Amino acid sequence: MLRTHTCGELRIENVNTTVTISGWVQGVRDKGSLLWIDLRDRYGITQITIETEKADKSLIEIARSLGREYVISVTGKVLERYSKSEKLPTGDIEIYPDKITILNSALIPPFTIEDETDGGDDIRMKYRYLDLRRNTVRKNLELRHRLSIETRNYLDKLNFIEVETPVLIKSTPEGARDFVVPSRMHQGEFYALPQSPQTFKQLLMVGGFDRYYQIVKCFRDEDLRADRQPEFTQIDCEMAFVEQEDILQTFEGLIRHLFLAVKGVQIPELTRITYADAMNYYGSDKPDIRFEMKFVYLKSAAAENANNLVNGAGFKVFDAAQIVVGICAKGAAEYSRKQLDELTEFIKRPQIGATGLVYARYNADGTIKSSVDKFFDEAALKKWAIAFGAQPGDLMLILAGEQNKTRKALSELRLEMGTRMGLRDKKKFACHWVIDFPLLEWSEETSRFHAMHHPFTSPKPEDIKLLASVPGEVRANAYDMVINGVEVGGGSIRIFNKQLQSRMFDLLGFSKEDAEAQFGFLMNAFEYGAPPHGGIAFGFDRLCSLFGGADVIRDFIAFPKNNSGRDVMIDSPSPIAKTQLIELGIPLS
Amino acid sequence: MLRTHTCGELRIENVNTTVTISGWVQGVRDKGSLLWIDLRDRYGITQITIETEKADKSLIEIARSLGREYVISVTGKVLERYSKSEKLPTGDIEIYPDKITILNSALIPPFTIEDETDGGDDIRMKYRYLDLRRNTVRKNLELRHRLSIETRNYLDKLNFIEVETPVLIKSTPEGARDFVVPSRMHQGEFYALPQSPQTFKQLLMVGGFDRYYQIVKCFRDEDLRADRQPEFTQIDCEMAFVEQEDILQTFEGLIRHLFLAVKGVQIPELTRITYADAMNYYGSDKPDIRFEMKFVYLKSAAAENANNLVNGAGFKVFDAAQIVVGICAKGAAEYSRKQLDELTEFIKRPQIGATGLVYARYNADGTIKSSVDKFFDEAALKKWAIAFGAQPGDLMLILAGEQNKTRKALSELRLEMGTRMGLRDKKKFACHWVIDFPLLEWSEETSRFHAMHHPFTSPKPEDIKLLASVPGEVRANAYDMVINGVEVGGGSIRIFNKQLQSRMFDLLGFSKEDAEAQFGFLMNAFEYGAPPHGGIAFGFDRLCSLFGGADVIRDFIAFPKNNSGRDVMIDSPSPIAKTQLIELGIPLS
Repeated sequence: MLRTHTCGELRIENVNTTVTISGWVQGVRDKGSLLWIDLRDRYGITQITIETEKADKSLIEIARSLGREYVISVTGKVLERYSKSEKLPTGDIEIYPDKITILNSALIPPFTIEDETDGGDDIRMKYRYLDLRRNTVRKNLELRHRLSIETRNYLDKLNFIEVETPVLIKSTPEGARDFVVPSRMHQGEFYALPQSPQTFKQLLMVGGFDRYYQIVKCFRDEDLRADRQPEFTQIDCEMAFVEQEDILQTFEGLIRHLFLAVKGVQIPELTRITYADAMNYYGSDKPDIRFEMKFVYLKSAAAENANNLVNGAGFKVFDAAQIVVGICAKGAAEYSRKQLDELTEFIKRPQIGATGLVYARYNADGTIKSSVDKFFDEAALKKWAIAFGAQPGDLMLILAGEQNKTRKALSELRLEMGTRMGLRDKKKFACHWVIDFPLLEWSEETSRFHAMHHPFTSPKPEDIKLLASVPGEVRANAYDMVINGVEVGGGSIRIFNKQLQSRMFDLLGFSKEDAEAQFGFLMNAFEYGAPPHGGIAFGFDRLCSLFGGADVIRDFIAFPKNNSGRDVMIDSPSPIAKTQLIELGIPLS
Repeated sequence: MLRTHTCGELRIENVNTTVTISGWVQGVRDKGSLLWIDLRDRYGITQITIETEKADKSLIEIARSLGREYVISVTGKVLERYSKSEKLPTGDIEIYPDKITILNSALIPPFTIEDETDGGDDIRMKYRYLDLRRNTVRKNLELRHRLSIETRNYLDKLNFIEVETPVLIKSTPEGARDFVVPSRMHQGEFYALPQSPQTFKQLLMVGGFDRYYQIVKCFRDEDLRADRQPEFTQIDCEMAFVEQEDILQTFEGLIRHLFLAVKGVQIPELTRITYADAMNYYGSDKPDIRFEMKFVYLKSAAAENANNLVNGAGFKVFDAAQIVVGICAKGAAEYSRKQLDELTEFIKRPQIGATGLVYARYNADGTIKSSVDKFFDEAALKKWAIAFGAQPGDLMLILAGEQNKTRKALSELRLEMGTRMGLRDKKKFACHWVIDFPLLEWSEETSRFHAMHHPFTSPKPEDIKLLASVPGEVRANAYDMVINGVEVGGGSIRIFNKQLQSRMFDLLGFSKEDAEAQFGFLMNAFEYGAPPHGGIAFGFDRLCSLFGGADVIRDFIAFPKNNSGRDVMIDSPSPIAKTQLIELGIPLS
C-alpha cells in the first residue's frame, strides 16, 4: 500500500499513529540539525521533519538528495508540532519518518508549481500536466466537477434523463462550419461532428422522452477568438408538453440551485428583460445589470420624438444623428481631462468605432460644464441633467449617430465605466432572462434572413400573422439567460408542426430539396405525433469560468487548444500516414 | 400549462380534483354509449372515459376523430373507476373530460408502438423516434441513465473527479484504426478521435489528479461485427499511488454498488482467476462461471504427462493430438443421437473449426458407451469417468488437437451446453476478475509482439528479468472484470518510468523516432515526477445491456448505427459540399 492517508487529512487526533503518505516534494528546507520536507498532493501539504542528529544516516542521505517535484512515499510517526502553522489544515502535526522511498525523480520543472507561477501561457500549455499540479488550476477543475454533479442531481430529481446522442452525425450548412470525418466504409461520404445535439433532442421529444438533458461535447470549426474553443461543452436540455414559462421556471431553478449548492450564494428570482428593452436601455442583448447606468435618450429614432433635447442648437453632429444617447456616471464629475481623453480614445478604437464623445459635468457647485458649451447653454444642459436624473457630482457621457451602432458603442462605454467605477465585482452575481428575441435577422452579406436563434425556433403565435408581411418584426419564443453580462444559456420553444417548419425553411432561403435532404427526417418525425416542446443549452465552460470568477474559459478546461486550434502538448493536428489517406479514399495532394 | 400531472401518477387520492394531462393516444375503444381513450406518456397510461349520452357533442366529435399516436391534452375531473384495473398503477381512476385539445395529429405509425412490435430492425432504426416510444426501449435508456448516475455517485464519494479529456486528439497507429478529422486551419494535418482517453488520463495522474473518471465517448473505425458500434461509451478511470490490489478493491466496489443500487442484487466478493487458469479450465479469458463444467484433460501439452489416459490405444486422432480435453455435462447422458449430431455440427462450423467430437455416455445402469468404443474398453472409459468426476447419467464431450485451437473450440461447446442445459440464466450474475494476463502476444501476421492490453501496461516487477530472454512469458499487472462470460472492463497498472516505457516501445517494434513523435509528450511527462498509477475502463454500452438482461448493445443506445456504420434515420455519412472540401484542402477526386 502506497499510502494510508493523503497529504491533506492528518490532524491532532492522528498523533502517535504510524502512517504512510505519498506525494510530490514541494520543497526541502535544510537547517543542518533539522530538515523539513513539504510533501504535497491534491488534498494538501504535510510537513515531514528529520532531526539529523538522531535520524538514520541513509534516511538523511535520501532526504538531502530530493529535488523539487520528486515523487516520494514516507512512512513514519505523526507527532504534534512544537510551533503550529495556522496556514495549513495539517499545521498541527508533522511526521517523523522511519522510511522514505523515492518513487520517481523529477527534472526541474520549466516553471514554478505555485499559485502565482512564473510560466507564460505557451510554456504552461506545452507542459499542461505540470500546470495542472498548481492549486489554482486544480481548483478550477474541481469546481467544474462539482457543477456537473450538482447539475445532474438537480435535473435527475426532476425526472430528466440523460441520453447520449451521437457524435458522428450529418453535416448541415446552416449555422457555423462543421468539423467533418471521412468515412472509410462509404468513401466520398462524411460524418460531421455536432455543433449541438439540437435535432436529436427534438427527436427524443417526439420519442416521448419528455425531459432530456446531456452534458455533452460540441464542435465548431470557426476561426478562434480569444475565448472560443473548437470543442466545447454544453448542458443541453429539452422538455415536452411545456410552454416558455415552464422552461424559464425550471432552469432558473437550476441556476439558483447551482449557486446555492456550489457557492453558498442565494440568488433572487430572475428578472426578465425583453430584447427590445435590453437594446433600448443597455444597447446589448446580454446586459450586465450588476449596475444600473441605463441609457438616456436626448433624441431617439422614433418618428414623433417628444423628448428631443438637442435638435436646433446648431450642433451638426447631433442634428444629423439618428439618436443621441448617454449614460450618467454617478460621482464621476471630477474625472480629469486625461481620464476623459482615455474614454474618447476607448470609444474611437476600431472594434467600437464611435467618432466622438460628448460629456457634461454636473459640478458639485451646481454648475454644468460640457464639451459642447458652444451650442448648449446652462439652461439646456440642466434639461439634460433632469433627463439623466443627474445630481451634482455626476458625469454625463453622450454618443450620437446611427441607432444600432451608437447603442453598441455606448454599451461598451457603459461596461468600461462600470469597470472603472468598481461596479463589476466578480464575487457579485446578477442573473436575468432576456426574452422575446426577434425570430429573424437580416444579413446584408447574404441578402437574406437568418434565424436569430436557429431554424427550429417557434415564432410567437400572436406574431405568426406578420411572417408574410414584415418577417423582421416577428418575435420568437426565445430566451437567453445572462449572468454579469455574459450569455450563459439560451433556448427556445420549438416548431413542432411540419407546415410551419417548412415555411421557416422557405424564409431562410432553403429550396424544398435542400430542406428535405438535410432535415427531412425531422419534418417526417413531426408527422407522427410530435408534442409541443422547447429547451435550452448552457455553455458549460463559460458557466464554470463565471462561477470561478475568471474571464477566460481556457483555465477551466483540462487540455485546451490554443487560438489556432492546436494542442501544443501532444502536437495535434498532425500529418497522418499515407496508408490512412488511401484507406479513406482521400486523394494525395 | 399543458399538464398538471403525468399519465402515470393519478391515484384514488386525486378523485374529484380537476386535472390536465397530455400524451399520445394509445388507443380508442368506442362502445357507442361509452368511449374510452387510453392516454400514454413516459410515465404510464391513464384512461379517459366519455359517456356519449351525457357529454358535449363537440367533445365526442373530437374523441371520435382521434387516431393512434395523436398528441392531445385533456382537462377533466378524476373519478373512481367502477371496474378497477390492477394492471395499471392508475387503474383505480379515470378522467371524465371537459375539454380535449388536439396538439398534433399523427400518421399511422409504420409499426405498432407495443412491447412486442411487428417492426423489423431496419424499419425501427429508420423511425427510431417512434421505436423510442416503446416501453422496452425507453426502459433500457432509463436503466442506462440510472447506471450513469449511480456510477458517478459512487466515484464522487471516493473523491474521484470527472475530467473531460479532448475529443480532437492525435492519430497513433498502434491499436485499432482511428477516425480522423481534417484541419482547415492547418491544411494537410488531421486530428483523430480518441479510441480511449488513455494518455490523457495518465497525464492527469502526472498532473496530480490522483482519482479521475469520465463517462466518455470513444471511437474506433473497425469493420463492424454485430455487436460493435463505431462510437461507444466507456466508464474510464485512473488512480495514482495505487497497486493492483487497490484498483481491484475500488472497482469491485463499484460493480457491487451498481448491482445493489440499480437492481437490488447483492453480489458476493469477486473471485479471481489467473489468465493461465482461465485458459486451462475454460479455454477463455472471459469464462462464464455461472456454471462449473470445467475442462478435464485426458492428455495435456505438458512435457511429462502423468495423466495421459488416451495414448497407445491405437486411436490416431488422440495419439496425434497435442491435447485431449473434455467437459462433463451433468445429467445429459440421455442426449439423443440427433442432439449429439447437432453438437458435432456446432463444433465443426467454420467459426469454431473443430474436426470432430468424441462423446462418452455414463448410462444410468453404470455402463459407459462412447463414440470411440473401438479403441477404448469399458475399463479405460471408467478411468475417464473418474477423471471427469462423472456419475451415472452424465455425458462426457471430448475434443482433441492443437492446444489453443482445441481449448477455444471446447470453450464454445461448453457455452453451448450451458445454454442448452439452462445454466445461463440472464437474471443470475456471476462476476469475477481475470488477472495476470501476459504482457505481450506474438502476432504471426506481423511477425512481432503486440501489447496484449496496451503499450502502457506495466510488466509484473518479478517478471521484468524475463523481458530480454522470453518476452512472451512476461506477465502484466493487467486485469479484466468478467460478468456472465462478458468482459465488461479491463485495465492495468501502468509504466511510469521513461526507460521502461521506451524499452516497451522497442519490444513493440517502434523506432526511437516513431516512439518520440507519437508518445514523446508522455515519456517527457514521466521525467517530471510521475507517480505510480493504474486504471480501468468499462464498456458502458455492454454493461447496460448486461444489466438489462439483453445480448445486443444496440437497444441500449438511443441512436445507434447499423452494421455498416450508417445512421439510417438521418442518412449519414453523406456527401458534403464542394466548398467544404475546398476549405479543408481535400483534393476533389
